[in-house]
Amino acid sequence: MTTVAVVGTGLIGGSLGLALRASGVKVVGYDSDADRLRRAVERGAVDSGASTLGAVFEGADAAFVAVPVSAVAEAVAVALAAGVAAVSDVGSVKAPVVEAVEAAGGAAAARFVGGHPMAGPGARGAPGEAVTDGIEGADAGLFEGATWVLTPTERTDPTAFAAVRDLVASVGAEVVAVDPRLHDDLVATVSHLPHLAAATVMHVAADASPNHDTLLRLAAGGFRALTRLSGRAPDIWPDICVENREAIVDVLDRYLDALGRARALVSAGQRPALLDFFERARAEGSSLPARSGVTGPLVELAIPVPDRPGVLAEVTTLAGHHGVNIADLEITHSPQGGTLLMVVPADGAGPIVEGLERLHYRVTRKDLG
Amino acid sequence: MTTVAVVGTGLIGGSLGLALRASGVKVVGYDSDADRLRRAVERGAVDSGASTLGAVFEGADAAFVAVPVSAVAEAVAVALAAGVAAVSDVGSVKAPVVEAVEAAGGAAAARFVGGHPMAGPGARGAPGEAVTDGIEGADAGLFEGATWVLTPTERTDPTAFAAVRDLVASVGAEVVAVDPRLHDDLVATVSHLPHLAAATVMHVAADASPNHDTLLRLAAGGFRALTRLSGRAPDIWPDICVENREAIVDVLDRYLDALGRARALVSAGQRPALLDFFERARAEGSSLPARSGVTGPLVELAIPVPDRPGVLAEVTTLAGHHGVNIADLEITHSPQGGTLLMVVPADGAGPIVEGLERLHYRVTRKDLG
Repeated sequence: MTTVAVVGTGLIGGSLGLALRASGVKVVGYDSDADRLRRAVERGAVDSGASTLGAVFEGADAAFVAVPVSAVAEAVAVALAAGVAAVSDVGSVKAPVVEAVEAAGGAAAARFVGGHPMAGPGARGAPGEAVTDGIEGADAGLFEGATWVLTPTERTDPTAFAAVRDLVASVGAEVVAVDPRLHDDLVATVSHLPHLAAATVMHVAADASPNHDTLLRLAAGGFRALTRLSGRAPDIWPDICVENREAIVDVLDRYLDALGRARALVSAGQRPALLDFFERARAEGSSLPARSGVTGPLVELAIPVPDRPGVLAEVTTLAGHHGVNIADLEITHSPQGGTLLMVVPADGAGPIVEGLERLHYRVTRKDLG
Repeated sequence: MTTVAVVGTGLIGGSLGLALRASGVKVVGYDSDADRLRRAVERGAVDSGASTLGAVFEGADAAFVAVPVSAVAEAVAVALAAGVAAVSDVGSVKAPVVEAVEAAGGAAAARFVGGHPMAGPGARGAPGEAVTDGIEGADAGLFEGATWVLTPTERTDPTAFAAVRDLVASVGAEVVAVDPRLHDDLVATVSHLPHLAAATVMHVAADASPNHDTLLRLAAGGFRALTRLSGRAPDIWPDICVENREAIVDVLDRYLDALGRARALVSAGQRPALLDFFERARAEGSSLPARSGVTGPLVELAIPVPDRPGVLAEVTTLAGHHGVNIADLEITHSPQGGTLLMVVPADGAGPIVEGLERLHYRVTRKDLG
């Protein structure tokens, strides 16, 4: 039976524990807040709680660190030192974490792959519904159909990557491999900007006096949707803003520019241009892929790989670059050398094969139906 | 049996028709789009369809005009000319409409009271769920527990106001009376700003290249909530932006300022100030009143009113100023003069009585339990 250590038993760690246990994995938990750990045990989110950070890794085949971004690298270092074969995290910012782990970890850092599940209670439930943070809001189905980013680098051990991928897939998530810096740039746009934009609307509303009571009475669907978004876990956001500062400032500048253009259209009363503006916004929203899992046919790509660092990251992030999830990944070794078997949805395979061939990989494609 | 004319059988007009019919009212509909009217009849949103705008008002006791903001005043004028005793609309902007009706309507304009239901499909359903616009998205329960703003002025006839209030209350909405200009300022903050802020986030995302496919794969709850908000009926927004231009430009300027301050906090990496920022945003969201109806005890305020214009607006908007809904309103006439009976929730009555007394009204308060 596989044993997984989960460090940090809040909403994400607790949901992961519940989901892993449901898939037949043994979960040992640790939390620096003993009371939260106790509640996680009571909730059944972990099979048992460890009394120290060191103890939680004893006998663990893999570990997930689900603590605030600024505390991830330290906990990962303890896991790697304890010899855990595959270590990952769930933080919203990746490059600083990955760099810190690689700087401190030496060769052991190869057993770490950064991770970020693109799921949260904001994605579920009605807009008016209260959001429950912490272990009390944990949900075994939280990751079902969600995208789970993994951020392999040149140094990532393919076996560690495959182990983390398997566990993530076992809780129903779809794995997309992305370079850590690219991840941080992209989440600045699709996660950090929406949160900051919504929180700032709340500030404008809060500053509206003297008719604040009336204002709140008039708040309907749109405002309430932003409320729900900006009301989540205020304590994790300073960390995210500081760790991903550059990308966030950059996206805020682009947002300020775009808002300035929208303001100019309103100010000039340009109906046709305003219609274009709102239609383009709707089109972007409509182009989102469905959240639920891809269920079409799959293909297996067999890629003979040389024994040099970076191949895993190169091959998997090429799929991520096309927004394609890695439905399965295996590494086989033979006297002739290693082969990386990567399964991806058939409708996304074409550009990946082309890209690999441009990089001089020799790819054999097999339709799995 | 009361007969109500509904002009414009899209999402709001259709939902109103369904809800009024469910409460025992006969509904006659008209739409300049004959096909949409036919679909409304098929949906059961109206008892019958009229073939012309003039014909829909024949025999109607009241009329609701549910067409785009720029077309409201013209349809209202036809309803008033046809002699309908109480006419209202559902447009998102009020001052230009009310002013246009009063400028064109002469004495007949007293039978018009502007209205705006603070409800829309954005307020319901899961964030990931598609929004259905038009008659196909109509819902008899759309207004249940929602705030419905009415905007009486100095010239509004109390009997027409009471008739509109009764119909609005019959579909489950809570009536809040607000001055038309104040309404426009407030909805610029709680409705138009959220919509523009969300649509602009979509533009930033759409302009993100060359990793757009990956970006969309990473879009989770927050981004999807904004998608839902910005994806609604792009065709009604140019009108709203033009008609409420001044208030929207003003709120966008406040938003740009507030965003600039947020950007400075991120750029400086000020963790404690960032925590304050996010906690204040959460607090504002938490201070929203529950959407569902007020169910506490009520009080009746009996207010002897002199026969001068503006009393109705003065008394009702004083309640609106405190965010208090008007649970009932009646006007009685006796040889000693008129009395306005206004029922409001007990917990909001105190400030209203004080305010009325400051305006030299003599108020008798009766607890209704």
